[in-house]
Amino acid sequence: MIGNFTYCNPTKIYFGRDALSGLYEELPKYGKNVLLVYGGGSIKRNGIYDKVVAALKKNGKRIFEDGGVMPNPTIEKVKEGVERARAADADLILAVGGGSVCDYAKAVSVSVHCGEDIWEKYFIRFEEPDCEIVPVGCVLTMVGTGSEMNGGSVITNREQKLKIGHVFGENVFPKFSVLNPEFTFTLPRNQMISGIYDIMSHILEQYFSGTDDNTSDYISEGLLRSLIHSADIAAENPLDYEARSNIMWTATWALNTLIAKGKTTDWMVHMLGQSVGAHTDATHGMTLSAVTMPYYRYILPFGTAKFARYAVNVWGVDPAGKTELAVAREGLERMEAWMKKLGLVMNLTELGATREMLDGMVKSTLIMDGGYKVLSEEEIRAVLSASF
Amino acid sequence: MIGNFTYCNPTKIYFGRDALSGLYEELPKYGKNVLLVYGGGSIKRNGIYDKVVAALKKNGKRIFEDGGVMPNPTIEKVKEGVERARAADADLILAVGGGSVCDYAKAVSVSVHCGEDIWEKYFIRFEEPDCEIVPVGCVLTMVGTGSEMNGGSVITNREQKLKIGHVFGENVFPKFSVLNPEFTFTLPRNQMISGIYDIMSHILEQYFSGTDDNTSDYISEGLLRSLIHSADIAAENPLDYEARSNIMWTATWALNTLIAKGKTTDWMVHMLGQSVGAHTDATHGMTLSAVTMPYYRYILPFGTAKFARYAVNVWGVDPAGKTELAVAREGLERMEAWMKKLGLVMNLTELGATREMLDGMVKSTLIMDGGYKVLSEEEIRAVLSASF
Repeated sequence: MIGNFTYCNPTKIYFGRDALSGLYEELPKYGKNVLLVYGGGSIKRNGIYDKVVAALKKNGKRIFEDGGVMPNPTIEKVKEGVERARAADADLILAVGGGSVCDYAKAVSVSVHCGEDIWEKYFIRFEEPDCEIVPVGCVLTMVGTGSEMNGGSVITNREQKLKIGHVFGENVFPKFSVLNPEFTFTLPRNQMISGIYDIMSHILEQYFSGTDDNTSDYISEGLLRSLIHSADIAAENPLDYEARSNIMWTATWALNTLIAKGKTTDWMVHMLGQSVGAHTDATHGMTLSAVTMPYYRYILPFGTAKFARYAVNVWGVDPAGKTELAVAREGLERMEAWMKKLGLVMNLTELGATREMLDGMVKSTLIMDGGYKVLSEEEIRAVLSASF
Repeated sequence: MIGNFTYCNPTKIYFGRDALSGLYEELPKYGKNVLLVYGGGSIKRNGIYDKVVAALKKNGKRIFEDGGVMPNPTIEKVKEGVERARAADADLILAVGGGSVCDYAKAVSVSVHCGEDIWEKYFIRFEEPDCEIVPVGCVLTMVGTGSEMNGGSVITNREQKLKIGHVFGENVFPKFSVLNPEFTFTLPRNQMISGIYDIMSHILEQYFSGTDDNTSDYISEGLLRSLIHSADIAAENPLDYEARSNIMWTATWALNTLIAKGKTTDWMVHMLGQSVGAHTDATHGMTLSAVTMPYYRYILPFGTAKFARYAVNVWGVDPAGKTELAVAREGLERMEAWMKKLGLVMNLTELGATREMLDGMVKSTLIMDGGYKVLSEEEIRAVLSASF
């Protein structure tokens, strides 16, 4: 823990099969008007919507609906939500869904009482809100983004062809989040796997950076081992409650600021994956898995010691009689084998990308400077080429 | 994560060499009157007192002193503090010291506006406060108890010969805590080592319980590995900033509720150690180290799988070709060797205990039911006998 840092995470979590009872604790704290935010309507088919509405009604709330939040929520949709929240005089925004719905709810929450252009203020100038923030609560139905316990909000501006994430301070964190692992059971297997890799990538982006010896990295190794162990069980039996609950809780701690404390972080895999996503509309987690191996194999020589540590502490590679480089490589081989077994997409072709898109993807990849090697445009091209 | 749970930890942490600047962020949020709580006065010798007072004065605070908090704060002292806080009309209680000072500050904070008998209410009936709570902030100068980021408050009633801890809810957690690893540099080596073992014991009490497969246990293994690694460095060079900062941050996460989530816990080592402490007045961490090996060796057959996992994941024991029992035992052997090398007290004689005290210690040991074996009085006697 070399760097100075602050840590504050005030979100109250209700976790487990009875987590929804948390709504009965929390709702009385807020006023009558609730903006109920959700996505495409799967929550109406699986019964979660009815349970949430029942809790709201029993607590005497007036419900104002705001459904149809898309997987990559747009600024236009946020502006619509702001109008609804204003018309409702919303005292609480209740997000029921996955990371996109939570991200969207946060973007609305900081904009209801804001008089400025919210795209410019929050997603171009990255300012913190200086207006009243409408409190947000979440009922999580998909696992991966960690949005249930952080200040992150990723919003897309289609007109400007930009997808930008603002990590807001603790005032914007959800006041409470309801995490019932059973609410994630109806998710298709492919989306579950994709979410699992999103979690793993969040941890690795923070882990593969810096050379200092940091408690955060040890916690990350614990989270990775837990995730790998439970992913194997969930891949066999997606209805294994214990495995799904471990995955859900690991996802929360993978991206709620803790494991980045006192150290640098990378996020280059996300930049590559997002660029692929912008050109193919492929699932986020699968864009990450497709570019991971080429990127890590490329930077391994610049961070061999950490990759060797990863091999031993996370993948159980026996280092006896091997060079550091050999140990580091063996770790990535084990990881690759595990990814393939899990059914992750390992190349861009499978995501619908073509080599004709390469120029565009290279141009739209943001270059980060926290990893073991700051890539040049040529190196980005090489990594993406190797991902086909 | 089988059990239902809630998680909320609103304490804001300022960590690092510049952590004290956090006071300039926090103090403006509170009123003018500050009760400044501290212990025996070492903070006056090492300059921390002057820095804190300067921050208070620059923020226009009126300072009301409450020094002399003893290592095991008494309920009589708490009542004195309550009177001082009332006379001061305190808007904030600022605790500058180690766990005892923080514990004491929390006990005062819930009692200032309480009209009932505070010993009976909080430490016999374990009620939550139903009065206004005076906010508490901490500047930490000793590492180990985790009191800087939890609701724990251990108070001693000398008249009744009782030392009781109440773990209050999140409303009683410090609002903020300042963690500067350099503030712990002046601590004598023996106290540093004792604190390190207190941290390890906190983690192990939560780890050695339950058979479910839990993310919390994986996080615990990460924290243990970080602690062992940094303790070795700090034992060689107590002024190694990185090692001391890792130890400080590990201590916070060892007992801020996270690693107990979704699982059972034990705490039997603490019950044995506290009983020894009541009869010898020995340092807390050293009472824990002295009873640990006899207790863990005794319960190992009842939780062999977990002890074997501990051996492999924390101590790097190679399980190839060995029985689970042999692996489990090898783990404890490595732990014992490490404890001796660190200079921890490994028997009760060294702490000044005699066999004549055995009856009294057995009688005053609270029996917990979360471990791998609920001990009978005879088994407690056997474990304590083996600790001589």
